[in-house]
Amino acid sequence: MKIVLLGSGNVATHLAKALKSKGEEIVQVYSQNLDNASLLTQLIGAEAIADLNEVKQDADLYIISVKDDAIGTVAASLKKVNGLVVHTSGTTDIDVLASQVRKAGVFYPLQTFSKSKEVSFENIPLCIEASDSDQLAILSNLAHKISSQVYELDGEKRKVLHLAAVFACNFPNHLYALANKILNQNGLDFEIIRPLIAETADKVMANLPENVQTGPAVRDDENTLNKHLSMLNDMPELQNIYQTLSNSIKLMPK
Amino acid sequence: MKIVLLGSGNVATHLAKALKSKGEEIVQVYSQNLDNASLLTQLIGAEAIADLNEVKQDADLYIISVKDDAIGTVAASLKKVNGLVVHTSGTTDIDVLASQVRKAGVFYPLQTFSKSKEVSFENIPLCIEASDSDQLAILSNLAHKISSQVYELDGEKRKVLHLAAVFACNFPNHLYALANKILNQNGLDFEIIRPLIAETADKVMANLPENVQTGPAVRDDENTLNKHLSMLNDMPELQNIYQTLSNSIKLMPK
Repeated sequence: MKIVLLGSGNVATHLAKALKSKGEEIVQVYSQNLDNASLLTQLIGAEAIADLNEVKQDADLYIISVKDDAIGTVAASLKKVNGLVVHTSGTTDIDVLASQVRKAGVFYPLQTFSKSKEVSFENIPLCIEASDSDQLAILSNLAHKISSQVYELDGEKRKVLHLAAVFACNFPNHLYALANKILNQNGLDFEIIRPLIAETADKVMANLPENVQTGPAVRDDENTLNKHLSMLNDMPELQNIYQTLSNSIKLMPK
Repeated sequence: MKIVLLGSGNVATHLAKALKSKGEEIVQVYSQNLDNASLLTQLIGAEAIADLNEVKQDADLYIISVKDDAIGTVAASLKKVNGLVVHTSGTTDIDVLASQVRKAGVFYPLQTFSKSKEVSFENIPLCIEASDSDQLAILSNLAHKISSQVYELDGEKRKVLHLAAVFACNFPNHLYALANKILNQNGLDFEIIRPLIAETADKVMANLPENVQTGPAVRDDENTLNKHLSMLNDMPELQNIYQTLSNSIKLMPK
């Protein structure tokens, strides 16, 4: 398949590398910023462009991996192509594409990507959706080439998954950052808490989280809860988060 | 060293196994519930007791690993012993022991323990404190036998660490549970989100969390934030958590 990639951010970069490593041909990378496109094409050997009018019209697949609110604008430039046009967004409806292009789909990798860290696509869940079964088969075939976990999900389910991902990824990472803030203010290094973070995530690989909850809130240890809240007196924002999450833990069925 | 273990919960069990595996002799395990004590002594070969009056008086080390509010009561039964008496609590002051026994210390493993999951002590930070430098040396020696990460921390720092641990462990685990709740209500399985959880924790093993934050809040994606909040209209508790944590992410310096 000849693939045009529209976007050069974290998702686009990691996806491009994974596709390239499986022998797929990425012919062009578009970015508003030509330097960003060039950075990526140097890695995967494609043409870098910064003008949507220069997009090749004869590719088999167009992967739009830009900010959600720019997907529609990019798709508008692909009205005449015959290839399949997909986006990689967790929250954007397929109709944003389907209303503009002939063949539309979604190719959503459920993972958190950073420029600085390599990830193996093998274990990344890929959520796919397409405007018809032929296109879905094409996407399924491509998805299985790079991942062992492929899920056919409609838009509603995909949006639920994206919401759950905020709770399972973005919020925990922020709580790690708040822990670091508390440590730093007291002359302690983040290093000391890394084994705990690793084990906490590892525990739920073979258990459900509600079955392995630990800490003062789940054991109704009011004494410790009150000590902790008073330690946060000069950090009211963290105190509020502590109270909110502890209350929520207490509400869980045991 | 002859060790008496007072307690048979998660911390006591994992600690006993680690000490035993390094050749330390645990001579007794006390629990209010004799069956619980016996379960543990069967694993490590010690005497099980359920009466504090039966505690051997000639041990070198007494490890009190019971609920925080029971530490004082257990310590009261050790007033006459000449050995070192330590507790394993993150939040309890050493004075709870030092006011009652001759030699007092703290031996706090910073980790989350579950009965169902083995952990290697090798990478578990052990935080130690003692009433004098001789006792600290004894604890340091013992701690280094089972872990490569030993920290000498006073009570204030240890309490800070325990508070940070709630943010880095207990709260993230609860957020995994809330993610699972969202998934289940929509017919999706927790399995799909496990790779994301693993990667989120793995990312901060070599990065600081504030440098690898992702998601709608950090990129000020109000459109997605509002969509997510409206998806949580029938779960006001989760909606409140979503709003609180998103606001907190936005407040972080970028």
